[in-house]
Amino acid sequence: MSHIHTIEKQTGKAFILNKGDILTVTDPVGMQVSDMVLFNRHDHGEKLSSGKSLDFEESILLTTGNFLWSNRSRKMAKIIEDTNGRNDFLLAPCSKETFEIMYSHEGYHPSCLENLTKNLEPMGLSQDEIPTAFNIFMNVQFDASGKISVLPPTSKAGDYVKFEAMMDLLVCLTACSAEDSNGGTFKPIQYSITPSS
Amino acid sequence: MSHIHTIEKQTGKAFILNKGDILTVTDPVGMQVSDMVLFNRHDHGEKLSSGKSLDFEESILLTTGNFLWSNRSRKMAKIIEDTNGRNDFLLAPCSKETFEIMYSHEGYHPSCLENLTKNLEPMGLSQDEIPTAFNIFMNVQFDASGKISVLPPTSKAGDYVKFEAMMDLLVCLTACSAEDSNGGTFKPIQYSITPSS
Repeated sequence: MSHIHTIEKQTGKAFILNKGDILTVTDPVGMQVSDMVLFNRHDHGEKLSSGKSLDFEESILLTTGNFLWSNRSRKMAKIIEDTNGRNDFLLAPCSKETFEIMYSHEGYHPSCLENLTKNLEPMGLSQDEIPTAFNIFMNVQFDASGKISVLPPTSKAGDYVKFEAMMDLLVCLTACSAEDSNGGTFKPIQYSITPSS
Repeated sequence: MSHIHTIEKQTGKAFILNKGDILTVTDPVGMQVSDMVLFNRHDHGEKLSSGKSLDFEESILLTTGNFLWSNRSRKMAKIIEDTNGRNDFLLAPCSKETFEIMYSHEGYHPSCLENLTKNLEPMGLSQDEIPTAFNIFMNVQFDASGKISVLPPTSKAGDYVKFEAMMDLLVCLTACSAEDSNGGTFKPIQYSITPSS
């Protein structure tokens, strides 16, 4: 059985996947979002692109059977299982400015952008290079007028999404730090990697 | 009266704006999309972000009164007038792969990504640095299931969108090269700049 890694609340972790590896991202408690960004491990100029993924998949809502695409129009990962079925690919990772601008928060606040940056800087990446993340378990609703609402995740304890790596990847995952995205409390995220056979 | 610049069909142009300048982008014939990308002129690491813009504006559909935001959570431009009222901020610029993957096109096809790259490379930018564009006049419909459909633009001859620059900008605009986004024919785009008084 593959080792289960825990990302403590309001933190993040970076790791590598080989082409063909299966990554399982689990919400161990329920109602917790995980932002995920992907880079071509051998050339960080190639990275996850929400704009390319939504275009090629012809959908705003990506789940089992959909692919995540790069800015160079190549498949980076395939979603092979999704027990919850609601993820977001519209909104950029929360940043300290998110809390100032959207919530009038004053002073320091942990954020996904900080946690992605902290874990990707040792790999030679800068904050400006971090793209819009694939927000696993994030429940962003929209109506025909385009109006967006962030609701608590529908994920329950043990829900997971499985991804197959379509190329050698550098991955960074967070346990999201935004109150409104996580039903008001902060929980850990878990992941495991099953090597390609 | 400010000079009217023409972007010939299936091409692009890059130019600068000073903070406070007004940019007017006009569809002179009707049913023609223009992809727009923005960079902080003094630091190209700061650029247009669909993910930040949709988040801060709480809408998928941006029009009069909305701001376009950067990856550093700062306002880049304000939409001050929009006579057509339908723009897209979901889909990345069409690239040669778009035509191969979506339309099984073989051989060369002009694309917005090529035209953005061609015009931004002399400014020191590479293709990998080009973000998801704000697609002026692009008519991307979506339903509650998330399914995306690209329909012909609703813009008529003379429709325009006016932007106020909120910082010193490097701008690149195209006259889009994708058949399905432009009602099957390729037309020019026009723009003019009114300096801040």
